Amino acid sequence: MFFGDEEALRPLIAAEPRLKNAVVEHCAKSVAMTDKPMHVLRRGRDTSMWKAIEAQKEGRVHAVVSGGNTGALMAVSRMQLGMLPGVDRPAVTALWPTPRGRTVVLDVGANVEANEHELVDFAIMGEAFFRALTGTKKPTVGLLNVGAEELKGHELIRNAARVLREADPDMAFKGFVEGNDISLGAVDVVVTDGFTGNIALKSAEGAARLVGGWIKEELTRSLLSKIGALMMTGGLKNLKAKIDPSSVNGGVFLGVNGIVVKSHGGADEKGVAAAISMAAGLVGKGFRKEVAQTIAIVHERAGKALEAAE
Amino acid sequence: MFFGDEEALRPLIAAEPRLKNAVVEHCAKSVAMTDKPMHVLRRGRDTSMWKAIEAQKEGRVHAVVSGGNTGALMAVSRMQLGMLPGVDRPAVTALWPTPRGRTVVLDVGANVEANEHELVDFAIMGEAFFRALTGTKKPTVGLLNVGAEELKGHELIRNAARVLREADPDMAFKGFVEGNDISLGAVDVVVTDGFTGNIALKSAEGAARLVGGWIKEELTRSLLSKIGALMMTGGLKNLKAKIDPSSVNGGVFLGVNGIVVKSHGGADEKGVAAAISMAAGLVGKGFRKEVAQTIAIVHERAGKALEAAE
Repeated sequence: MFFGDEEALRPLIAAEPRLKNAVVEHCAKSVAMTDKPMHVLRRGRDTSMWKAIEAQKEGRVHAVVSGGNTGALMAVSRMQLGMLPGVDRPAVTALWPTPRGRTVVLDVGANVEANEHELVDFAIMGEAFFRALTGTKKPTVGLLNVGAEELKGHELIRNAARVLREADPDMAFKGFVEGNDISLGAVDVVVTDGFTGNIALKSAEGAARLVGGWIKEELTRSLLSKIGALMMTGGLKNLKAKIDPSSVNGGVFLGVNGIVVKSHGGADEKGVAAAISMAAGLVGKGFRKEVAQTIAIVHERAGKALEAAE
Repeated sequence: MFFGDEEALRPLIAAEPRLKNAVVEHCAKSVAMTDKPMHVLRRGRDTSMWKAIEAQKEGRVHAVVSGGNTGALMAVSRMQLGMLPGVDRPAVTALWPTPRGRTVVLDVGANVEANEHELVDFAIMGEAFFRALTGTKKPTVGLLNVGAEELKGHELIRNAARVLREADPDMAFKGFVEGNDISLGAVDVVVTDGFTGNIALKSAEGAARLVGGWIKEELTRSLLSKIGALMMTGGLKNLKAKIDPSSVNGGVFLGVNGIVVKSHGGADEKGVAAAISMAAGLVGKGFRKEVAQTIAIVHERAGKALEAAE
């Protein structure tokens, strides 16, 4: 189902024969990238974003994919779908390519700060999400930290690690991981606050793009280089596909009681397809029920552990 | 001057004719990588690390380069050399390659947390360091932050930005930058706390190494690829040199009243040479005096601005 300006959507849909049965729900308004989330909550009930999330609440669609305003999408999702029982704050996921496949990093932008309980919840949600996405029975989980110093990292990260070890013995929790461990694929799920996660992700994207630019430069530097590059066209195509950010497009809003996937605003057709395919892959996996159950158990155990410690 | 086990050093020095006049100060002990900084401060006075820093305090050497235990090196430097007037906390720099040359990122590991005043001091120190290193008259400075959300970043980063704008009008302060801006070379100096800086740096190194691994894989995949790669040997060598981390080796301890450069423990000869050359390049630049003066002025102005606001 498409939510948006019917007049604009119809010719685009008509150009793709496989979409001939697509349903369009006309929405006269849309959320602008500069709209404040609070403004959309108050006055955005006739926007395409609101209507799409509302359709999920009403059970008319199973999942929503949007390339729009992230803050507004999060606010509208929380207001209409609510949060999973026991979860206070949502987290946005990112897929990070590794030599072993994909690592999930969360949070990459929903929360500027996260306390120890929220980091624990992110770990539980990330684990269940990775399981639903890949079928891995026991995904490995690590907390992002710094390594070199005597007192490793913030106290709250150390506390979160203690709670995960004590209260969630079923999780394959591997303790702390460092920035370089993400690209190594050292664990399946890397947990951090939204500020650090966003900066880690964007710093890595920047570095990958820099190296990609250098490759391009060297391949076209001389005639011999150009001929050499021609001879390895297949290899370079593989390389381009691997670096291509569209293959990892789609940030899932974990913790929200629904399936909402944010597609990058600048994603191409392959990127949007990847986001839609991720959303579809989560439908019917029951991972939200699993998250709610695990969180209830871990919160109870963590509370008891705290009482015992007092 | 070399500080260490003379018996071990002599044959290494003899193998390099240009070092024939090198002075060795024999030290029976050394600091182990696992030694706690506090332990070294209390019982490490006969270690090579202590003796080297002591030699700088005594004016026998102008700068110290060490590949040893970072925490201990920082503690020994602070204890013996003291801090610059007005500076409470040191910061470790990293050089980050960009298409425009090099960007300095600090702090990348001395402090897990930094308050707004420390971020302001880091900005002033980073600016003076970049000027001393490159001769750029007005280095541009940015504060690392996240972009997408309505309320951008932590409150303390916003406060630091306000202080820099109001109290240091001579600085080419460009406001907030995001993770991907570092590799773009958007500014000359990127300021952040040690936790975030360490994770940004290591995440980017990991991503660059991942892309480098993919390149290698594709270049050797087929015979045609191999021949193609051979034809562009020169280009690939250039590429390797650019990705080579040894070209950016050397973290300077800013804020300490001396010149101390930490070389990566796993650096090769080119890496160590880069660290030594950076240390030598800082000698006689007077950047410490400049830092102390700027910090005195900015602290006074910031104090007045706060009084006026009350």
